[in-house]
Amino acid sequence: GRPPGLRRSWSSRLRPPQLIALTFAAAILIGALLLWSPLAHEPGKSITFVQALFMATSAVCVTGLAVVDPGSTFNLFGEVVMLVLIQVGGLGLITLGTLFALALRRRLGVSGRINAQQQVSATTLGGATSLVRAIVLSSLLIEAVGALLLLPAFIPREGVGRGIYYSIFHAVSSFNNAGFSLYPNSLMNFVSDPLVNLVVTGLIILGGLGFLVQLNVLAWLRDRRRNRLSTNTRLSLTMMALLLGVGTVFFALTEWNNPKTLGALPLHGKLLASWFQGVTPRTAGFNTLDYGLMGFPALFMTVVWMFIGANPGSTGGGIKTNTFYVIVASAWSMVRGRRDTTLFGRRIDTETVLRAMTVGLLSMALVTLGFMALLLLNTNRDVLFLQLFFETVSAFGTVGLSMNATPLLNTPQEIVLIFLMFLGRIGPLTFAVAFSRPSPEKALVRYPAARDILIG
Amino acid sequence: GRPPGLRRSWSSRLRPPQLIALTFAAAILIGALLLWSPLAHEPGKSITFVQALFMATSAVCVTGLAVVDPGSTFNLFGEVVMLVLIQVGGLGLITLGTLFALALRRRLGVSGRINAQQQVSATTLGGATSLVRAIVLSSLLIEAVGALLLLPAFIPREGVGRGIYYSIFHAVSSFNNAGFSLYPNSLMNFVSDPLVNLVVTGLIILGGLGFLVQLNVLAWLRDRRRNRLSTNTRLSLTMMALLLGVGTVFFALTEWNNPKTLGALPLHGKLLASWFQGVTPRTAGFNTLDYGLMGFPALFMTVVWMFIGANPGSTGGGIKTNTFYVIVASAWSMVRGRRDTTLFGRRIDTETVLRAMTVGLLSMALVTLGFMALLLLNTNRDVLFLQLFFETVSAFGTVGLSMNATPLLNTPQEIVLIFLMFLGRIGPLTFAVAFSRPSPEKALVRYPAARDILIG
Ligand SMILES: [K+]
Ligand SMILES: [K+]
Repeated sequence: GRPPGLRRSWSSRLRPPQLIALTFAAAILIGALLLWSPLAHEPGKSITFVQALFMATSAVCVTGLAVVDPGSTFNLFGEVVMLVLIQVGGLGLITLGTLFALALRRRLGVSGRINAQQQVSATTLGGATSLVRAIVLSSLLIEAVGALLLLPAFIPREGVGRGIYYSIFHAVSSFNNAGFSLYPNSLMNFVSDPLVNLVVTGLIILGGLGFLVQLNVLAWLRDRRRNRLSTNTRLSLTMMALLLGVGTVFFALTEWNNPKTLGALPLHGKLLASWFQGVTPRTAGFNTLDYGLMGFPALFMTVVWMFIGANPGSTGGGIKTNTFYVIVASAWSMVRGRRDTTLFGRRIDTETVLRAMTVGLLSMALVTLGFMALLLLNTNRDVLFLQLFFETVSAFGTVGLSMNATPLLNTPQEIVLIFLMFLGRIGPLTFAVAFSRPSPEKALVRYPAARDILIG
Repeated sequence: GRPPGLRRSWSSRLRPPQLIALTFAAAILIGALLLWSPLAHEPGKSITFVQALFMATSAVCVTGLAVVDPGSTFNLFGEVVMLVLIQVGGLGLITLGTLFALALRRRLGVSGRINAQQQVSATTLGGATSLVRAIVLSSLLIEAVGALLLLPAFIPREGVGRGIYYSIFHAVSSFNNAGFSLYPNSLMNFVSDPLVNLVVTGLIILGGLGFLVQLNVLAWLRDRRRNRLSTNTRLSLTMMALLLGVGTVFFALTEWNNPKTLGALPLHGKLLASWFQGVTPRTAGFNTLDYGLMGFPALFMTVVWMFIGANPGSTGGGIKTNTFYVIVASAWSMVRGRRDTTLFGRRIDTETVLRAMTVGLLSMALVTLGFMALLLLNTNRDVLFLQLFFETVSAFGTVGLSMNATPLLNTPQEIVLIFLMFLGRIGPLTFAVAFSRPSPEKALVRYPAARDILIG
């Protein structure tokens, strides 16, 4: 028994991963109730509670998958609720959850310390408050600039009032990598429009950079003598550039002559659309071409890119670029028989390697189980194997790209995707740490190593 | 420059993983030339060299995938070539490769030592010769008993001479987990035959146990006081039982009412067929039901089971049961915040964990790349996404189950599967170690650890 004097309140007894998961869940529930209420609907429209829950989860987890078309289902109030949920999900919860944890002045255990570092993206937790202020202000600034730049595209098409609103909505949705659009066909109307293509992909890339990377780069630009780029920043920027470049070129090569996608476009449209579809799988979710009409190779590349995702500590999802790099690099070191994996003159320590491999394998297991559940629950014979796989990875990676199967799913399948989006956003390892009892380490007993286990 | 006096012959300069890979390749090439020659064909039949190479690879790697029907394409000589290749692939090369390496009296490096241990399945390499003799004799004994038990099934159907030959062929093919049958529809004629079902699954399980496990269990049965079951044996047996049990029950539950599979059978047939299809994905490759007619859940379970595969050091393939266990258990330990993963009172050391995770991730990458290649090269519009994925995993796991797409593939796709079978059999990590230049360890320079890399 714990002495009664040491008993703490329920909130102070929660560990940071639990707080983050519960804060997320609370925001989703409030959002779902608001979106379910008739206040949020266009006249004559109504949706089920699970549909509302799906849309709220998709917004808070900045996924962008939709079981109903937001533009024609929700009225202005409903759309603003979506926008607030996206903003809260993209920026707020991660930092708020950590601040909450810090405000309780709890001593962070090892797993808590790792998580808080990841979520705030701060190497020193002392400066968390000013860090969060910087995050929020810089994000709002970037979104405002993005919205201004989008005005010339939306005002001629929608009129002044609607044009301003559409610019703000799509700028926020882009920077937060949410991928929700007020158009039922996403941004397909703008496939060859240079302005929309470049502004939206710019916002997506800035949002997916990771806050720590963003601040580190800004500090470095201000004073290159005193501030250096960290290993994390160098790795994140290199991986980002590599994935964007390879994704764009691969998409162009495989779809160039497909008459249903790039083949129908003029040359500048082909180039813009290749770039856009190279950027969006990481993990924005807008599209300017129909994913239902692409060939297998482009779809498969998209699935892999969606799984890898964006930089850690960003508005994007997936297992994250750094996780992917550490997995690949340490596997290569093992093949070459090297003791260490090095990177920019630094060694990647074993704890980082094990963590990366665990995240990779847990994520693959989660995608496998989710996909299996969708298959088992499937009742619609028109839905293809590939479509279900695509939607599974898209939900896990909080991407929101769709092969148009999401609106065809039944309620149990919708619930599976809700779980996948939630688990994908807070991360399978964070979730597992949050809801498993920490095992007290028996420091006095350590078993001898079994070195006879045969592997592979 | 190396002093001329220290120069060694090419064979003594090869490391064991290279020797194993090259011996495999040599056996495949000799087999392909024999199977390509008109000596091996039924009158009026002929096959391309790539088809012969495919069949030889499939036999040596004990896979069982077939681009031509062996029973109607090859004459008796051709079939005996297949049988010898299966026997050589299942038993010989692994042990021969190691003996060859030992005979050269080479000092084994770290990676070499691990590999040799794995391949011979001996904890002490000193007793390798007697160990190999025991392996070969016990295998031939088990195959002989199996063939005798199968006589009552094949003689009434095929006559005495052919019946004896069919019994021997199917016993060897079962024990070596090769999965080649002389019937074009595998063992579907025997779906409700208790004798064939039980003998064949018994041989498959014995072959997939792993030689070290087999010898350890025999020693333990002879004298339980002096000999104990090793951690490896306990883990292998537990995983085997678990996968067989879950596989059978899952298959029965999901296919019970499918009129094209279990639904059409009497009760005892339903039970036998569930058991058979629960056993065969690990990684035998015979089938008594048509995989082209099964539902998604059963197919998906089969894919996962094929990927996991059999015990290490056995005739079966896949990433191996122990690898799978170590991955799952160490991920769970990380979630629970434990320092060590323990198992039967032993700790699994970090080197084993990293090795298992690397094997798992390399295998997933190999399957992903192979699948991608098959998709890119696909020219037959009747071949489905799911079929190609199934054949990819089947080739990698050296399983040989098929959704009937293998005979429809074009020559470049056949070459992709040849590589997958080869890499899957010798193991992606062994292969990578074999054909990469070992990196000289710079013992004097060790970089400081970068602990700021954000993961997941
Ligand atoms: K998204
Ligand atoms: K096989």
